Amino acid sequence: MAKEKKLVEAITSMEEDFAQWYTDVVKKAELVDYTSVKGCMVIKPAGYAIWENIQRELDRRFKETGVENVYMPLFIPESLLQREKDHVEGFAPEVAWVTHGGLEPLAERLCVRPTSETLFCDFYAKDIQSHRDLPKVYNQWCSVVRWEKTTRPFLRSREFLWQEGHTAHATAEEAEARTIQMLNVYADFCEEYLAIPVIRGQKTEKEKFAGAESTYTIEALMHDGQALQSGTSHNFGDGFAKAFGIRYTDKDNQLQYVHQTSWGMTTRMIGAIIMVHGDNSGLVLPPKVAPVQAMVIPIQQKKEGVLEKAAELKDVLAAAGIRAKLDDTDKSPGWKFSEQEMRGIPVRIECGPKDIEKEQAVIVRRDTREKIPVTFAELADQVAETLEKMQKEMLDAARAHVQAHTYQAENYEEFQRIMEEKSGFVKAMWCGSRACEDKIKEDTQATSRCIPFTQETVADTCVCCGKPAKKMVYWGRAY
Amino acid sequence: MAKEKKLVEAITSMEEDFAQWYTDVVKKAELVDYTSVKGCMVIKPAGYAIWENIQRELDRRFKETGVENVYMPLFIPESLLQREKDHVEGFAPEVAWVTHGGLEPLAERLCVRPTSETLFCDFYAKDIQSHRDLPKVYNQWCSVVRWEKTTRPFLRSREFLWQEGHTAHATAEEAEARTIQMLNVYADFCEEYLAIPVIRGQKTEKEKFAGAESTYTIEALMHDGQALQSGTSHNFGDGFAKAFGIRYTDKDNQLQYVHQTSWGMTTRMIGAIIMVHGDNSGLVLPPKVAPVQAMVIPIQQKKEGVLEKAAELKDVLAAAGIRAKLDDTDKSPGWKFSEQEMRGIPVRIECGPKDIEKEQAVIVRRDTREKIPVTFAELADQVAETLEKMQKEMLDAARAHVQAHTYQAENYEEFQRIMEEKSGFVKAMWCGSRACEDKIKEDTQATSRCIPFTQETVADTCVCCGKPAKKMVYWGRAY
Repeated sequence: MAKEKKLVEAITSMEEDFAQWYTDVVKKAELVDYTSVKGCMVIKPAGYAIWENIQRELDRRFKETGVENVYMPLFIPESLLQREKDHVEGFAPEVAWVTHGGLEPLAERLCVRPTSETLFCDFYAKDIQSHRDLPKVYNQWCSVVRWEKTTRPFLRSREFLWQEGHTAHATAEEAEARTIQMLNVYADFCEEYLAIPVIRGQKTEKEKFAGAESTYTIEALMHDGQALQSGTSHNFGDGFAKAFGIRYTDKDNQLQYVHQTSWGMTTRMIGAIIMVHGDNSGLVLPPKVAPVQAMVIPIQQKKEGVLEKAAELKDVLAAAGIRAKLDDTDKSPGWKFSEQEMRGIPVRIECGPKDIEKEQAVIVRRDTREKIPVTFAELADQVAETLEKMQKEMLDAARAHVQAHTYQAENYEEFQRIMEEKSGFVKAMWCGSRACEDKIKEDTQATSRCIPFTQETVADTCVCCGKPAKKMVYWGRAY
Repeated sequence: MAKEKKLVEAITSMEEDFAQWYTDVVKKAELVDYTSVKGCMVIKPAGYAIWENIQRELDRRFKETGVENVYMPLFIPESLLQREKDHVEGFAPEVAWVTHGGLEPLAERLCVRPTSETLFCDFYAKDIQSHRDLPKVYNQWCSVVRWEKTTRPFLRSREFLWQEGHTAHATAEEAEARTIQMLNVYADFCEEYLAIPVIRGQKTEKEKFAGAESTYTIEALMHDGQALQSGTSHNFGDGFAKAFGIRYTDKDNQLQYVHQTSWGMTTRMIGAIIMVHGDNSGLVLPPKVAPVQAMVIPIQQKKEGVLEKAAELKDVLAAAGIRAKLDDTDKSPGWKFSEQEMRGIPVRIECGPKDIEKEQAVIVRRDTREKIPVTFAELADQVAETLEKMQKEMLDAARAHVQAHTYQAENYEEFQRIMEEKSGFVKAMWCGSRACEDKIKEDTQATSRCIPFTQETVADTCVCCGKPAKKMVYWGRAY
């Protein structure tokens, strides 16, 4: 019992200190560990298995839209990084530089890719000649490096895993359509697979990607009311094409610049899962992304027949396509419950001698703690149904949380008061000027999260300067 | 016709210049391209799709043996790399060094991982406390960097993709068993999936991995008679555990060092597929690893109903689980045949107006060029059967090639003559001394490929020095 208490006590409650709660969950659920390299993490089996599921599902959705995977070099020569002016200004201050290969100094420094626009452009410039070569819809799964000063597991680290899609198109319209298409792939993926509702919209000029003509984003709201940018999709127009000379001959034999896009999603999404769904007992994984969906936990396992029956139930579940495991270690059931809860396994199946007598087991949902007694004969069907229901209800609960934490401000006083007293998204009108964004950030630490696709008219004038408003914007403090 | 000739003419014949043939195939089959970073390549969609299939199948086989995937940092602090003496001596001369993060010089240089033993050890030293924590059977899929002077696509590049497994065990016996188990996973994978026969054996002291107690290897023979080391599995004993202080308390509460292994397979295997199966028309992919298994090519596609029928056949094949594509571009059939052959797609399905009249199509095998007429009704079954047969016969053909190019030498004169006149494996006895290995290499450029598990007695004395022989060794020139 002392031991059992210890596992739960090891987490700070989220009401007390959300940041510490997050760090505790990340460690106690065995998702990551720190390393000798500051700002770089080990992703442990429980964490990496979540990433594998994210990869598999996203990759499947990408390929349905015609995406092909490739692999580009890890290194970018300094001269190549400098080819597009805005891009290099955005990234040069935070890249890691390789200066020596073996014992020799390099003739030219190489940076470890922070993102691979320049490499894809260098390749496309050679590879694209004719309109027959278009579109190129390439993606790669890899790690990238950004030399961040402050780091947090999954949310901001010096190295992280991601996918980066890079496409080239004949026309501006096609590039814009692909940019929006991929944003919608991300949004649907978040909602349908991770049970995380998102706001779809466009970034302001201030917040857009270095070198992009326009950046689209999906924004999620964490349990503490802070926003998390969860996926971005950029339309580069022909800016990179001009900087790198990427041209094709069209059907009339005229030379034209291509139009490009890029889009990415990262291991940060594991952080989002934790902060949207987790509770004071640890992680709560949506069933679809959970590496283990059902943990069978025998009660009084030393009694004759209990372990055998538990193993049989696990096999029945596995045969029904449920990712099931049996905890047959010699720990106490209470300890096993705590572990299963800490790791966010969606349901556990409890089964002891009394249950066996009655030919039944008990399904316990991780999110609601609901206990569902079920006969052995109906177990697999009931678990499958429970997982499906849980997936849906987790999305509903997360939606309700966003709704409950989305406010509206008609004037600056109201805006500042909300930012002071509450936490969440604030919908407010904006005149379109950078000055107002800067002032709002200085006064409240809130940034423009996005200009949502679904516009509403909250007021007629800019929440900050009072001049005529152009757009409604979601504002919030963000990770 | 001129155009069609061009594609085939673009490849040097392998008899004329095997190295040039290889480079031509790699380029013309669109597997890779060169980049602005010397020694680093772009893996294009056709190449990367092969790697994805290799990954999926190997990963599945790993997980069946209890392997869990993780991710370790890209960087290794210099002091960490230096912890194991043999290991650092082996790798330090060929690593890339990061010296600056953003605008600041680093307090300690970081090397870009050439392999991750040191990172896993650093992690295990913290993560392993008790015998309950063992075994650890971890693997990661990533890229590594070795600053090679001479590079060739897939075979030797400054950056390559691989998997590296790193395990920790309570006993020496368990570590040895895992080392052999993973070697067998590699060997079975090569033979069953890539149709590449391999020799399983142990590396000599001279050829073993830096820091290992013993290294096991699988060796394949390329079409030109040169050997290719295709996968290695290392037993480290407790050497790394002592250098890094990785200890656990056993059941009697005594502190013990763990025993470790590591094992890896790389994108080099794509080079092996090319050099074992390719011919003068390009790549030949074994059906199991082929991203596209069947290409439907319509004949006289402008005639009414031809394209529709071809599309229908493609759908029928896809519905039967065959990875099928339709080439409906406006190129000539001859050109399409050349492209399908260059890319190594295992079978093509030809179908024109005359075939449609007779309700039939023609399957053409890439390896033997055999033409198999088949009714529409039987198409899917026949293609599936042909692919299965082709997979088997490609392995048989590769086995026959190894057999025909494996020689035996009883004395040094014979050994040298074979090495001069033939190319392939030479089985010969060895006294066990490094001096003989060095002399053989100097005289013939041949190295000991392995001490095969299946020993034969070719003679009683060492092929080089004439002293009593200890082991039979496979010798050969290698990539």
